[in-house]
Amino acid sequence: MTLSASVADQLPDAVVAIAAPVRPTGSATHGVAVTDVRLDPDGFWGGRQAVNSAATLEHCLRWMERLGWLANFDRVARGEETHERPGWQFSDSEVYKLLEAMAWDLARRPDERLEATFVALVERIGAAQDDDGYLNTAFGHPGLPPRYSDLAMGHELYNAGHLIQAGVARFRTGHDDRLVEIARRAADQICEEFGEGGLDAVCGHPEIEVALVEGGRAFGERRYLEQARLFVERRGRGTLHVRPLLSAEYFQDDVPVREATVLRGHAVRALYLTAGALDVAVETDDDELFDAVTRQWEHTVARRTYLTGGMGSRHQDEGFGDDWELPADRAYCETCAGVGSVMLAWRLYLATGEVRYADLIERTLFNVIATSPSADGTSFFYANPLHQREPGAPAGDGVNNRAEGGLRAPWFDVSCCPTNVARTLASFGSYVASVDAEGLALLQYAAGEVRAGGFVLDVDTAYPAEGTIRIRIVDAPVGERRLRFRIPEWAVSATLQVGEGAPVPVAPGWADVTRTFVAGDLVVIELPTAPRLTWPDPRIDGVRDTVAVERGPLVLCLESTDLPDGVTLDDVRVKAGAAPSSHGDGARLAGSVDVLGSVDGALPYGPRRGLAGQSRQVDLALVPYHRWAERGPATMRVFLPVVD
Amino acid sequence: MTLSASVADQLPDAVVAIAAPVRPTGSATHGVAVTDVRLDPDGFWGGRQAVNSAATLEHCLRWMERLGWLANFDRVARGEETHERPGWQFSDSEVYKLLEAMAWDLARRPDERLEATFVALVERIGAAQDDDGYLNTAFGHPGLPPRYSDLAMGHELYNAGHLIQAGVARFRTGHDDRLVEIARRAADQICEEFGEGGLDAVCGHPEIEVALVEGGRAFGERRYLEQARLFVERRGRGTLHVRPLLSAEYFQDDVPVREATVLRGHAVRALYLTAGALDVAVETDDDELFDAVTRQWEHTVARRTYLTGGMGSRHQDEGFGDDWELPADRAYCETCAGVGSVMLAWRLYLATGEVRYADLIERTLFNVIATSPSADGTSFFYANPLHQREPGAPAGDGVNNRAEGGLRAPWFDVSCCPTNVARTLASFGSYVASVDAEGLALLQYAAGEVRAGGFVLDVDTAYPAEGTIRIRIVDAPVGERRLRFRIPEWAVSATLQVGEGAPVPVAPGWADVTRTFVAGDLVVIELPTAPRLTWPDPRIDGVRDTVAVERGPLVLCLESTDLPDGVTLDDVRVKAGAAPSSHGDGARLAGSVDVLGSVDGALPYGPRRGLAGQSRQVDLALVPYHRWAERGPATMRVFLPVVD
Repeated sequence: MTLSASVADQLPDAVVAIAAPVRPTGSATHGVAVTDVRLDPDGFWGGRQAVNSAATLEHCLRWMERLGWLANFDRVARGEETHERPGWQFSDSEVYKLLEAMAWDLARRPDERLEATFVALVERIGAAQDDDGYLNTAFGHPGLPPRYSDLAMGHELYNAGHLIQAGVARFRTGHDDRLVEIARRAADQICEEFGEGGLDAVCGHPEIEVALVEGGRAFGERRYLEQARLFVERRGRGTLHVRPLLSAEYFQDDVPVREATVLRGHAVRALYLTAGALDVAVETDDDELFDAVTRQWEHTVARRTYLTGGMGSRHQDEGFGDDWELPADRAYCETCAGVGSVMLAWRLYLATGEVRYADLIERTLFNVIATSPSADGTSFFYANPLHQREPGAPAGDGVNNRAEGGLRAPWFDVSCCPTNVARTLASFGSYVASVDAEGLALLQYAAGEVRAGGFVLDVDTAYPAEGTIRIRIVDAPVGERRLRFRIPEWAVSATLQVGEGAPVPVAPGWADVTRTFVAGDLVVIELPTAPRLTWPDPRIDGVRDTVAVERGPLVLCLESTDLPDGVTLDDVRVKAGAAPSSHGDGARLAGSVDVLGSVDGALPYGPRRGLAGQSRQVDLALVPYHRWAERGPATMRVFLPVVD
Repeated sequence: MTLSASVADQLPDAVVAIAAPVRPTGSATHGVAVTDVRLDPDGFWGGRQAVNSAATLEHCLRWMERLGWLANFDRVARGEETHERPGWQFSDSEVYKLLEAMAWDLARRPDERLEATFVALVERIGAAQDDDGYLNTAFGHPGLPPRYSDLAMGHELYNAGHLIQAGVARFRTGHDDRLVEIARRAADQICEEFGEGGLDAVCGHPEIEVALVEGGRAFGERRYLEQARLFVERRGRGTLHVRPLLSAEYFQDDVPVREATVLRGHAVRALYLTAGALDVAVETDDDELFDAVTRQWEHTVARRTYLTGGMGSRHQDEGFGDDWELPADRAYCETCAGVGSVMLAWRLYLATGEVRYADLIERTLFNVIATSPSADGTSFFYANPLHQREPGAPAGDGVNNRAEGGLRAPWFDVSCCPTNVARTLASFGSYVASVDAEGLALLQYAAGEVRAGGFVLDVDTAYPAEGTIRIRIVDAPVGERRLRFRIPEWAVSATLQVGEGAPVPVAPGWADVTRTFVAGDLVVIELPTAPRLTWPDPRIDGVRDTVAVERGPLVLCLESTDLPDGVTLDDVRVKAGAAPSSHGDGARLAGSVDVLGSVDGALPYGPRRGLAGQSRQVDLALVPYHRWAERGPATMRVFLPVVD
């Protein structure tokens, strides 16, 4: 298959100028540029973006310097033989993800000091690049294994992919400089090495696919797109060496992408690969591949996704489980899998304009992405379980090894999440709205200003703490246009008010207002934020006969911190008929405490044990899940056992 | 601490002659010898022991030859440099476990061919032993890492432990030959290397502890016991190197044994260590250590043990989970952990004479140990989950990699289970009965003959298929003696009939008959074998609102193989009030099928979904769990969701 004419036509003057991570060629719907959105620092997302800029970027840089991950580049640059190399074989990628985050950030808020840091960092990296464009500090240099000698676990193309994405971010934010040159040379070398007639192989960790597609789009290089297509098509044919205790499924090398029916194996690998496959399908008008990706997403959302939007239910192999295998306590829900799910859903949205993809993005942003970083932006969750049985041990200021949640940690032995959160928050604006021929669609509600499609919108809201969203049209294009607003799938009693008109009920989906807008027009959306009970499908054994409480887009949880003295989370039950009431941005719920006790030495199985649920009434205070463990070690539950 | 006087007194003429794996010094209760029990080959256990002798031993030998695990010894013997070494660093131990199994087997049924195979195997192994007694094919020889250079993962002392146990088995079955010499020299070398003033270290995988204690008991070597004590005391002090993504808890190196409150980390490691600690406590009259072990067992049984007796709820690290973390689908329940649990419970029984330990042994034997091998004894389960969501892929005749259940496999990449099952079945007789000053206790009911404590008992039973156990006294000692029979914890309506007397109700625990027995006396025990519903503790989230069916000592399960066409296990429910009826050695139960369906692309959470449980009635046929997956790939559940 070769690239469709549409690609060829449009590539030369490709949409390079738009400062957005994803710009499908010839798509009817485009995300806005990160520079088109100014988030209010007092708002939910604006605040997090500000902390990311002020604290997280430097935090990540300091840790990578401290651990020698940056010095790895210097040693290679000096041509020095490597004896002891700090960091995993994918540590280079963390530096690149940080560069990508910095690039988006610099576009939004020019900062001389950050710019200088960025340029200096790029210099150190560039100095380590070989003449032919190869750039890696774990392979291909004195004292290290040869290039591409461990495609299954070596992460060489994975690292290069993140380098290319950093280059794309820099280029799309108005710079055709050293990083762009480094990234393009790296991409060129990969096309040389792995192109038709070259190495017929793939990388154990997908990422190069999305990167090459975006690089091709940004730089107008069709061969990058073609190389991405080759990597997608080559996968699932068992070419990766499977070392003992792993499996081809772990790498998604078990079934060709276009034949697969569900996401499986390592969750981040699966999501990155599928996002890349969707990009290829879009650029090559490959309906079969497009339908395969849609089918996989639909099956995965319906049977392998957590209430938080989190994906991956196994610590073993950081992987997806079988259908309905969604334990709350051992939920892995890696933060990076959340990022990957947003990447995939965002591409599906841009390709279809379907609101359901933006719904999953909101759920994942508020309950996975926002859960990872601490309020000060210097510690993170790697795994995001929905039930913590033992209070987490304070992570201290050292490197966290197990990354299994309990308490946020400043850094991890495998530290993919902090920089992934950083680049996502830095480019957050691009997910807020999209434009098409009819006008503008507001997808995520964040206080701030949006300038796109000829509109300037002032969004005034305390969402998600409150459900009122006031959108004032500061400027509008001439003539009739459509403003469409996403009414979330959970918002069953939302209203929309235009100007002086009366609020009218709007159903979940799109609420459209088509008219000639003028400066000063006001649209007010009311989303219901009363806490609600949410029940899991009865086939999810791990949470059978339990209920969760949600409030707007927020999943809530119960922390031991908020229980009366002497009450443990294991003994708490809620009445099936209980009605939660609003309590700040959380909720209150009537519960009961049955002190169950147990007999040491006796097995916990026997005659049926009735739970009256009458023993002791207790008023339960639930808080947003994204804030859990901020008050020190605690046990926690999202799904609360029910007594009828 | 030095060994107590009691040990010193009794060691010289230690109980070396008794052909049993465990012989605590000065214990009031002794297990019978494997040679004291003849199991009827038509009986449940006799049949499995016969298959083990006829098929499993040779099966294991063939695989180890085929994979080069035996050739590893030959290469070391030739002093040849090793370039590519097949097998993990613990593959030597499989050969030793097989030798132990052969030794017990040969004692029960002399067999020239097996004896010749045994002797030849011992010769190959002995030829690889260094002059100072060190014996290992993965370390300490040309081309291999130096001795004890990776104590955390190298398994050198673990391997030696199994060699010593094989030597003990050979010695206790009446041979003071080459294997005994090899084993003693290996033990001597370890005492030299790791004794007071020597290497202050432990092995990442416990096993050497139980082996040195038993070696000390068998060979009358007090320093072996002292070395075992040192290894137990040294543990939990963080001396083992923890490589990334592991933890000190994995090795039980996080907390000193006498301070620990529960079993944790890698399940087999935890159980082997604790068994060794109990041995040391017994031999040194260390009440504090003894109480610590008892406390850990009690807590673990009450909160971290499956209905089958299986232990270990995490695939990650093959480990114990937190309290109440007992998912049915991801239950690991490694077969070797079942063996380890029997090892620990057996030692606790011998030390206390408490029936509860024999109860757990029965549960584990019938539902874990008996589940692993196929009927023909040539394929095995490594993990023993209580819920199979996807039919297992046929393992074929190759090496199975993941060892995650679904279907039994002939051999595994990590193949610890087959030889562990083999040595347990070969020495099964020793768990059947025990003797003390008052007489004999019958612990496990298996058709056959028991000769011990002056008694000759003929046990006639179809247990567990039927509940009638007829014990005929063929010969009895002179004077009054006590015969005690274990009434299992689940047998709430058992009766005991002595001679012509009427059957009298007996409660779970011990049923004692104290009198002067004469040849011809008959005791008949009736154990209830009507199927019963068993409910899990409401704190076990993974099986909340489900029920299991048991029949006598057997846990039953529902396999998709037995469902009507078009019905999937996910849709099956049972009424809370349902009463199971007997059906062969399984049960029948009225169930209902609610076809739940689902919406692709929609999250499996929302408003409460009522399950009438009325839709379609279905008659469910349950089979013993130990037989599951014998009829090809199937999905399976032990715990069935309930509708009220």
